[in-house]
Amino acid sequence: MQSLQEKASEWSGVNQNDAFAIDQTNLYQKLGLQTFINLSTNFYNRVYDDEEEWFRSIFANSRKEDAIQNQYEFFVQRMGGPPLYSQRRGHPALIARHRPFPITHQAAERWLHHMEQALDNTTDIDSDSKIKMMNFFRHTAFFLVAGDELKNKKQSMACKHATSKPAAV
Amino acid sequence: MQSLQEKASEWSGVNQNDAFAIDQTNLYQKLGLQTFINLSTNFYNRVYDDEEEWFRSIFANSRKEDAIQNQYEFFVQRMGGPPLYSQRRGHPALIARHRPFPITHQAAERWLHHMEQALDNTTDIDSDSKIKMMNFFRHTAFFLVAGDELKNKKQSMACKHATSKPAAV
Repeated sequence: MQSLQEKASEWSGVNQNDAFAIDQTNLYQKLGLQTFINLSTNFYNRVYDDEEEWFRSIFANSRKEDAIQNQYEFFVQRMGGPPLYSQRRGHPALIARHRPFPITHQAAERWLHHMEQALDNTTDIDSDSKIKMMNFFRHTAFFLVAGDELKNKKQSMACKHATSKPAAV
Repeated sequence: MQSLQEKASEWSGVNQNDAFAIDQTNLYQKLGLQTFINLSTNFYNRVYDDEEEWFRSIFANSRKEDAIQNQYEFFVQRMGGPPLYSQRRGHPALIARHRPFPITHQAAERWLHHMEQALDNTTDIDSDSKIKMMNFFRHTAFFLVAGDELKNKKQSMACKHATSKPAAV
């Protein structure tokens, strides 16, 4: 059986080394807090204004300001800065926290489309940092698609068990 | 509805600040890689020899050497060292990776019992580091109990839906 990270690499086309090349440089020190805030603000402005209703609706129950803060605090923490996210919310637990959302291949690609635009439209992100971040984001997006499939698998197994009971009785 | 970290704090008795006091010091630089390897080895020797069969059996399908490596690589990464875990396995995704296991309150307490013993029996861990680590472990153990309940909730909802179908037809 393929592991989460094997699926993520296959589906994203980004291998593990490239995905975690973000750890070769301290991107937080290089870019600074304000750049991360700007990036997440730019990103979520695009997401909440998306013309694709199916994608926009995934975020309908979250406040935009919360989404922005959750995201940049996680990025800062993961890319060499202070652990802002964990101080406020505990472990990132990426897959579990994305559990309420349908993280399909299509949703991953749409997320990445907006993030690529946001990176291109945030000043002070050099091209090397941009490449490292996109590889990380692409691999992570498909890691979450793999995590989402875990959820579906478990559900259908549980239900199979539940529905087969009456037949056995 | 209580969040994962609120449940973790309530059940563990460790507040968020104390749980993430591990981030005030670089414990990896203070203790060194070998201490983390020794700690996880000591811990899993206890777990795999546990007289409590119900607890020992949780680990029955994992090789002890793998369990040791997964654990110390995560600890090293989380406590200020190189991202050994992510380079090999991707995001920690703590809740999702514990999904196959029944993480009950009782299991959390048993895990913590062995970890406390392991900390006391690993040389070169000073008492301040020990307190910080135990608070982190205790909070994290109950964060995983909270994560485990998410799973049960989802399952029972899915099954309720599945089993209620025949009655509706």
